[in-house]
Amino acid sequence: MNAYPKINAPRLLQRIADFAAVGATPAGGVNRQALSADDRAARRLLAELAVARGFGIYQDAVANLFIRRGGSDPSLPPVLIGSHLDSQPTGGRFDGALGTLSAFEVLESLEDADVVTERSIEVASWTNEEGSRFSPGCMGSMAFVGAGDILGWQDMHGVDGVRFGDELAATLNALPEAVTRPIGHSVSAFVEVHIEQGPVLERTGVPIGIVTGVQGTKWLEISFTGEAAHAGTTPLEFRRDPMAAAIGAIARLQQVVMPADPLARLTVGRMTVEPSSVNVIPSKVTFTVDIRHPEEGMLSSIEAQVIAECRVSSERHMVDVHTERRFDLAPGKFDKAIVDLIDNACERLNVSSMKLVSGAFHDALFIARVAPTAMIFVPCRDGISHNEAEFVTPENIETGAKVLLETTLSLAGGIMHTNG
Amino acid sequence: MNAYPKINAPRLLQRIADFAAVGATPAGGVNRQALSADDRAARRLLAELAVARGFGIYQDAVANLFIRRGGSDPSLPPVLIGSHLDSQPTGGRFDGALGTLSAFEVLESLEDADVVTERSIEVASWTNEEGSRFSPGCMGSMAFVGAGDILGWQDMHGVDGVRFGDELAATLNALPEAVTRPIGHSVSAFVEVHIEQGPVLERTGVPIGIVTGVQGTKWLEISFTGEAAHAGTTPLEFRRDPMAAAIGAIARLQQVVMPADPLARLTVGRMTVEPSSVNVIPSKVTFTVDIRHPEEGMLSSIEAQVIAECRVSSERHMVDVHTERRFDLAPGKFDKAIVDLIDNACERLNVSSMKLVSGAFHDALFIARVAPTAMIFVPCRDGISHNEAEFVTPENIETGAKVLLETTLSLAGGIMHTNG
Repeated sequence: MNAYPKINAPRLLQRIADFAAVGATPAGGVNRQALSADDRAARRLLAELAVARGFGIYQDAVANLFIRRGGSDPSLPPVLIGSHLDSQPTGGRFDGALGTLSAFEVLESLEDADVVTERSIEVASWTNEEGSRFSPGCMGSMAFVGAGDILGWQDMHGVDGVRFGDELAATLNALPEAVTRPIGHSVSAFVEVHIEQGPVLERTGVPIGIVTGVQGTKWLEISFTGEAAHAGTTPLEFRRDPMAAAIGAIARLQQVVMPADPLARLTVGRMTVEPSSVNVIPSKVTFTVDIRHPEEGMLSSIEAQVIAECRVSSERHMVDVHTERRFDLAPGKFDKAIVDLIDNACERLNVSSMKLVSGAFHDALFIARVAPTAMIFVPCRDGISHNEAEFVTPENIETGAKVLLETTLSLAGGIMHTNG
Repeated sequence: MNAYPKINAPRLLQRIADFAAVGATPAGGVNRQALSADDRAARRLLAELAVARGFGIYQDAVANLFIRRGGSDPSLPPVLIGSHLDSQPTGGRFDGALGTLSAFEVLESLEDADVVTERSIEVASWTNEEGSRFSPGCMGSMAFVGAGDILGWQDMHGVDGVRFGDELAATLNALPEAVTRPIGHSVSAFVEVHIEQGPVLERTGVPIGIVTGVQGTKWLEISFTGEAAHAGTTPLEFRRDPMAAAIGAIARLQQVVMPADPLARLTVGRMTVEPSSVNVIPSKVTFTVDIRHPEEGMLSSIEAQVIAECRVSSERHMVDVHTERRFDLAPGKFDKAIVDLIDNACERLNVSSMKLVSGAFHDALFIARVAPTAMIFVPCRDGISHNEAEFVTPENIETGAKVLLETTLSLAGGIMHTNG
């Protein structure tokens, strides 16, 4: 009998629970940092599930793991779906794992329904997306697109003092059944399911976010230096108050940047004050500005605006200003055709969706450099992520997997096939 | 021969140098904290100088020290002049000592010129003005006017762990030649010379400040509590950003409070941010506001304005606000007749002067409760005080002493007197 492939939601929920047990923390989250023993255990579990279904297992030199279900034309570059299995030290059970296991559920559902696709489909689990043990994050996807310095990373040491090269080798050796593959094989498309890590979907009640791109990010550290003086004895005209300068500049930026542009993000997350005494006008105030925007030009223009407002404020308050860029990541745009495919999939499934731009980085940002790529977001409770309290409803998990399946079938040229 | 009394500037400078050697710090300042061995040594030095000139020595139960030069009518309440000899742990050589030694120089100059005044004149050196070792400051002057809890202080321990009562007793016992006197004897007037501890006199080039009062002070601690969230994934409309709320409120206050009223002071000296991460919208921002004004009504009105702006900002940013008053000191007004006497003295001496309000507390603030009181300020370099770099020019030291002498003669009913 002809069966249209169907997501097995109870199985997917069980898989998520099974993987959450690997590196489980007492508070209900996971500590499965990249290339750790627990990360290896999660890779082993995925490999065993793959073997049980007869899927191929591959890994490359940076330990990116691929689970392959062959298509009718093995010469065509495969469709890649997936995410990552590593976590933050006190991470949640969904960040990464949800995308990897939803992708694996797609393979299993195709297998259950005896569907033959034209293209092969591979579940990718990228190495060290989080970057909490070894920096930078997204190592696997960066290396996959030729943007990572694999040789240079070898002698790096993690926050726990362990050498990256040793942990990488141990991880590769722990999966001897995997076929070694050259890094960066040809790929026809990549689709990643991930939790939103923000509040928009949950608060608007929309179960699917179709991600059109990833915001660019610039981090500035700004210091105003003035002159410490007595709060009581120093009139306004004699003050060189770096706090007043900082407040003036930030207040102005808050009035103009975000209200004027709904895609802009401007956050002051840190501020330190010297000497930090109630009755002393500060000598120095240092703060950070996190700027995000999906358009490179706007990102640069906001950065210029931040620096300009700080200069104006420094002159007005007769203090010195020093600005330093601490981080710079260009925005990424996802492929319009893939975005449209996801959109069509949602329509066919009668699932409401909205387009949005990711505020966080993802492996998809890098894979987009070599293949048409997009992402599917599902809501997470209160927008909370990188936190053991991370939570996604079973309904939203199922909906995300359904949309991924439908999209993957479109990309892989799915052919219904009766096996008996 | 009839001699008008005359300040002996080299002697006064030498005395200042001699006292600066007591508890001297390597960086040129003094560490002569209240009731310490060095404080006792300074008191001993002053007593020995007094004995050498035949002046009377008195101390009360809280170790306020009085050096008395008798007048022609000993039944009249004396004129009090002076300041304090204790210092901050890394204090300067002028804060307190300048006023005490200028007052002692007035006594010596009267003695040199064989002047007999109608009223007795007493140099007061008040106990523990600084409050750095034992809190509160201005203990001696507070106790003198009945505002201090002398019994309650006894069992208090200083920052060095030593009991106040023990150090007080040791200090009193170290000066056995002093006559013990009941606390709070009747006084006809009090005049205190002090460094300005602010920049106004130096920057306006005026050598004498006639202090008409002391600003009142209120300290507020204000916390805004919102919700930590990802800087990239959280759009403006979903933010509950306590930093934005704090910045908005402070910016508004900075625009309106000080520019509108030249007597108002508003200082944000501390700010702490939680969790303090570049890419996390803060969950909590706490800051202090130091408010000063010479008028009680205006002081309360500014405090109300601060609280109101914080409430408005908390509502606008959907965060909670908590305000707490941490310190409250009412403004003090000095006596108009004494202010006029100092003004006249400056005119007679052809010394330019300006009236100003003290931004710092002084013993005179308390003595003003029981006797007509005012202060004479001299400029200090860069307005720096509570710092080993504190500096006053010899010219300004001499001018301050001259104005004090002239004022004291007016108050004491000075009569020129030929002794031979």
